[in-house]
Amino acid sequence: MGVIHQSTDSTDSTVDTIYVEKAHSKPSTLQPATPPQDRRPTLAEHGPLIDHNIPQADAIEQRPDLWWNGVRRTLQEPFSEFLGTFILLLFGDGVVAQVVLSGGKNGDYQSINWGWGLGVMLGVYCGGKSGAHLNPAVTFANCVFRKFPWRKFPIYTLAQVLGAFCASGIVYANYLSAINEYEGGPDIRTVPGPNTSTATAGIFCTYPQPFLSTTGQFFSEFIASTILMFCIYALKDDGNIGAGNLTPLCLFFVIFGIGACFGWETGYAINLARDFGPRLMSYFLGYGHEVWSAGNYYFWVPMVAPFFGCTFGGWMYDVFMFTGESPVNTPWLGLKRLFRPSRTKTPNHVV
Amino acid sequence: MGVIHQSTDSTDSTVDTIYVEKAHSKPSTLQPATPPQDRRPTLAEHGPLIDHNIPQADAIEQRPDLWWNGVRRTLQEPFSEFLGTFILLLFGDGVVAQVVLSGGKNGDYQSINWGWGLGVMLGVYCGGKSGAHLNPAVTFANCVFRKFPWRKFPIYTLAQVLGAFCASGIVYANYLSAINEYEGGPDIRTVPGPNTSTATAGIFCTYPQPFLSTTGQFFSEFIASTILMFCIYALKDDGNIGAGNLTPLCLFFVIFGIGACFGWETGYAINLARDFGPRLMSYFLGYGHEVWSAGNYYFWVPMVAPFFGCTFGGWMYDVFMFTGESPVNTPWLGLKRLFRPSRTKTPNHVV
Amino acid sequence: MGVIHQSTDSTDSTVDTIYVEKAHSKPSTLQPATPPQDRRPTLAEHGPLIDHNIPQADAIEQRPDLWWNGVRRTLQEPFSEFLGTFILLLFGDGVVAQVVLSGGKNGDYQSINWGWGLGVMLGVYCGGKSGAHLNPAVTFANCVFRKFPWRKFPIYTLAQVLGAFCASGIVYANYLSAINEYEGGPDIRTVPGPNTSTATAGIFCTYPQPFLSTTGQFFSEFIASTILMFCIYALKDDGNIGAGNLTPLCLFFVIFGIGACFGWETGYAINLARDFGPRLMSYFLGYGHEVWSAGNYYFWVPMVAPFFGCTFGGWMYDVFMFTGESPVNTPWLGLKRLFRPSRTKTPNHVV
Amino acid sequence: MGVIHQSTDSTDSTVDTIYVEKAHSKPSTLQPATPPQDRRPTLAEHGPLIDHNIPQADAIEQRPDLWWNGVRRTLQEPFSEFLGTFILLLFGDGVVAQVVLSGGKNGDYQSINWGWGLGVMLGVYCGGKSGAHLNPAVTFANCVFRKFPWRKFPIYTLAQVLGAFCASGIVYANYLSAINEYEGGPDIRTVPGPNTSTATAGIFCTYPQPFLSTTGQFFSEFIASTILMFCIYALKDDGNIGAGNLTPLCLFFVIFGIGACFGWETGYAINLARDFGPRLMSYFLGYGHEVWSAGNYYFWVPMVAPFFGCTFGGWMYDVFMFTGESPVNTPWLGLKRLFRPSRTKTPNHVV
Repeated sequence: MGVIHQSTDSTDSTVDTIYVEKAHSKPSTLQPATPPQDRRPTLAEHGPLIDHNIPQADAIEQRPDLWWNGVRRTLQEPFSEFLGTFILLLFGDGVVAQVVLSGGKNGDYQSINWGWGLGVMLGVYCGGKSGAHLNPAVTFANCVFRKFPWRKFPIYTLAQVLGAFCASGIVYANYLSAINEYEGGPDIRTVPGPNTSTATAGIFCTYPQPFLSTTGQFFSEFIASTILMFCIYALKDDGNIGAGNLTPLCLFFVIFGIGACFGWETGYAINLARDFGPRLMSYFLGYGHEVWSAGNYYFWVPMVAPFFGCTFGGWMYDVFMFTGESPVNTPWLGLKRLFRPSRTKTPNHVV
Repeated sequence: MGVIHQSTDSTDSTVDTIYVEKAHSKPSTLQPATPPQDRRPTLAEHGPLIDHNIPQADAIEQRPDLWWNGVRRTLQEPFSEFLGTFILLLFGDGVVAQVVLSGGKNGDYQSINWGWGLGVMLGVYCGGKSGAHLNPAVTFANCVFRKFPWRKFPIYTLAQVLGAFCASGIVYANYLSAINEYEGGPDIRTVPGPNTSTATAGIFCTYPQPFLSTTGQFFSEFIASTILMFCIYALKDDGNIGAGNLTPLCLFFVIFGIGACFGWETGYAINLARDFGPRLMSYFLGYGHEVWSAGNYYFWVPMVAPFFGCTFGGWMYDVFMFTGESPVNTPWLGLKRLFRPSRTKTPNHVV
Repeated sequence: MGVIHQSTDSTDSTVDTIYVEKAHSKPSTLQPATPPQDRRPTLAEHGPLIDHNIPQADAIEQRPDLWWNGVRRTLQEPFSEFLGTFILLLFGDGVVAQVVLSGGKNGDYQSINWGWGLGVMLGVYCGGKSGAHLNPAVTFANCVFRKFPWRKFPIYTLAQVLGAFCASGIVYANYLSAINEYEGGPDIRTVPGPNTSTATAGIFCTYPQPFLSTTGQFFSEFIASTILMFCIYALKDDGNIGAGNLTPLCLFFVIFGIGACFGWETGYAINLARDFGPRLMSYFLGYGHEVWSAGNYYFWVPMVAPFFGCTFGGWMYDVFMFTGESPVNTPWLGLKRLFRPSRTKTPNHVV
Repeated sequence: MGVIHQSTDSTDSTVDTIYVEKAHSKPSTLQPATPPQDRRPTLAEHGPLIDHNIPQADAIEQRPDLWWNGVRRTLQEPFSEFLGTFILLLFGDGVVAQVVLSGGKNGDYQSINWGWGLGVMLGVYCGGKSGAHLNPAVTFANCVFRKFPWRKFPIYTLAQVLGAFCASGIVYANYLSAINEYEGGPDIRTVPGPNTSTATAGIFCTYPQPFLSTTGQFFSEFIASTILMFCIYALKDDGNIGAGNLTPLCLFFVIFGIGACFGWETGYAINLARDFGPRLMSYFLGYGHEVWSAGNYYFWVPMVAPFFGCTFGGWMYDVFMFTGESPVNTPWLGLKRLFRPSRTKTPNHVV
């Protein structure tokens, strides 16, 4: 569809827009001489932390004198990640709440696949201004393989976790009386386990099947994350078929598929923000220490495994399929980079 | 994507097409000097009420002398809203009727999500000539945030309510004998409640779950409407990814998602026209006073809450993401406009 | 979307491609002086019956001397309708067979919606060279409202009925042993009714619910056909939003929706070819006289009602929405044409 | 549409990309004088076996000196088929595993249709660099009808089988503890049959319904393969409507439809690689000799029938619909070619 016409030659622009690039935007005249940044900027220096050259779709009424416009420009990317993840979790936790609390009458397991799939799809549409990572592990893989700036990694992760945290609170507020009804009272909050059949903690974050060992938990999250990242890079690779403006729709299918095919054992968290944010919220809401200890302290698995999985999936795609700019297309398949990462961003210095 | 080729040069054309814009359209040179309209036009002045410059797809045989062509041009927008909402309600009420009356054999809750989702999608395709709002709250938000003319708000709302009203009558006629069979006789019409298990009033409009307080009802409708408007504005924002010609398809996912994730408690009306029109029809059809009193006089919630929700959702999107022309991108975030609305339309005078 | 690049310059090309038009095609310069055809061509004159200017996708190896190439050119449109309806019925009857014969284990009512919906979608892709009507009532409406040549109506209808007839035979052959198993023996073939719970005639054609009167049957088929045609014309109207290259996908949603919302009472035949062809086949296969007498001789309803419904639906769309060339956009809303149809095709002589 | 911009100038490029072609590509000037290859190249001559002119999406950092880049260029097509089939089987076998092992709680038969459908869709996106055949029978039909080089057939088939083989191993590893739980112990592995109700071999490959004779098995696989190939060629035919960049999405519907409509009797293998690779893996994993003997030695049916079905389906499409370059559009409908295949590739010498 000609979604992407312009050639991008900025140092950051090729990595900023990971999922779906700005359509129809004129080739923005990017600064030709961004000075190399040899040290991590501190949070106080938020000026250079975020690009100020976000493309403006409809610049009829740009009022740079307005205080809020400046704030929004500065924080556009965190806002975007926050809201994208917020939408994702609203739909995702919402659908689990509806299926669980209605006793399966108003939805079944397939509804859950729908909810998470379209949550990602609509979250990508909402959070497109920052590339719509919605997942710290995706941001991480983009830093490793697509030159996404490492300095943005902490703020992206923070925004994603906060978005998930807040959205799960909204879902809780919306279903408060239904949860009271289901659990049996406003003071009862339980975590899935052998002693309860009316647990509602599973609305917010994932809990594994009881027969899984920690190794099995980790492997399940690892393989699902690998598939996620491999498919994302395939969809984004214009040297392959490439999904173009169908990418958000295709991500619906990716998430639906991971949920339908690899979602039973651990609930397919595959995302630190999606799991840790709501888990923290449920802890604050009074679900007790079991949110951490359940499944033999399973909580760290969906925090750690996606980083390994997404990195491996991205590496797989780049090694076997990708012919564009990637550390894999450098000497030693870029493995040196893993052990001696370079913070410089000019193409000559990569590796 | 070149779906629509003709250039539109009416003064209101930038706001008429809310859901799916003309793709590839050049930035229309907005007339800088539209004379401010200081008084609301009365219904008698329907001449200026409706644009006469509706784009003509295939102008081979324009016969301006024909009486009906003039009528249609004058009333194109109300016709379009009427028919769009008509199609929406045909599918929406139809699917609920089929699921309820067949006892779940020919459809389940997921079918209802399908029906409402594709009802909106096809309603948008059918009612595109007026922007396919299909929802008074969406029209309201467009008036507030996208300069849709306030003078069109009443006629849009009226057309939408009428379309929903008539469509529910058709659904009733179609399923008349099945309703008689299900209720137990042609004179029995019941509203969902503790004393009946064969109520059919839920086919036409929404009734809340019994455990919900009025606050809970309002909050549930509010949050669903907020999500609706936030997603619509995200899909329409070309400064973001933008859904382009996939917008109707994406709306299918939005409605499906709201139904699957936030549809259990109140039946996700999120639309005055969708709920009030059929409720009135069911009252006329003999369902009795309970259509108003059920759920502690719940009927006003889906009439009022969507206006608050859609306005808040639109405001959220414009504050955090939108960089185009919006009252939010004016001093004081446009809050002054809420309290002192201006009826002028020239950019200089907004706020 | 540039799906089809070649320019078509045949005299009938504007009406041949009903479902999905050539995108981006220049407004073809309609020949101003096509000689009026005052008599119906006989079947013997198959020369002018079918266009010889079918667009050629890849004309590298055009061998006009080959006998079969000439036959195919001559019969391209019947072939195309035959195969499109063939594919439609393979999927449609196939999914009903699977759901019925597996006792609901390998599919449910929603599967049936999927099957018919994607059957239409893929049938349209397969039968696109003739416009993919797949339905005599759609062909009829196109003759009335879109100047599709009346002389093609019989051959289109014949090809469609034959395609449905043959496909249902293939489905029967494929599920023969399963039908024997389900009915209880190779000599037992039963039609749905009060005396059997293992009837399989419903695999092939539709049978109404027992509580429906003939009026109810007719109304149900009428309203479903009206919706079908109204939506098709909306999707095809570039003066509206228009679905462009998404049209086949949108038709999936239209059929899915009709099945989910209006499909319970009569099985949503809405198509003479889809219902009569397989019914004839099932009669030949030994299901007995009941295939005609069931439902108080219901069989004629899906043969007749779709013509009324599709004509009314097309008339509705043209009256209220369509601004292009249509008899409705002529004096007396084209009603005169219904009573005194004209066989001439030049724009000046319409009506 | 413009998804891929670069022009491809390799000699085989017109046939390499079967599923989704480069849109908007100019008709490549086919070299008129490719020297005829009169002998099959051996595997040792892998140089000419694989094209070295694979399009490069982003050639910023082409490092031809890198060892791995050369390997990847040489083996790009086998890699691509391997990974595409790998993704297909991960989703496909994964969804069956989840549905079977969760006892239908986390998925139903429709989930299986989703899983295989989106597996093909995403496999096509991942394996697009080789044309994404993912199926030896599709490769075979392309060799027969679309001039895909016969010399590539063995390596494509090998890569596809290996991809399926490896992916089923990953699925086994992922669900190992769940399989142990379901079968009753780590040493119990059973094949579907009359003596077991907890068989898990059906996760990996297909087993037919017990009432089917071998003829019925063959016919069911044959008809499903015919539909598959007929639809693929229709979707790819720009002389027809053509699906363009929607082709992978349409393939989702094709596979979903085959599964929903013709998938019950034999499990719709329609693919040697999809069935034989995982069957071999399950044999190695200890499911015993029954993986071969089940269903009266059914295992050869999904290996052989798809070749007949796909060839017949492709022949059907070319005979009745296709006007481009095909052996069918040559004297004797190309039947001579079936009996006396030519290995030359220049257009003048075909047949």
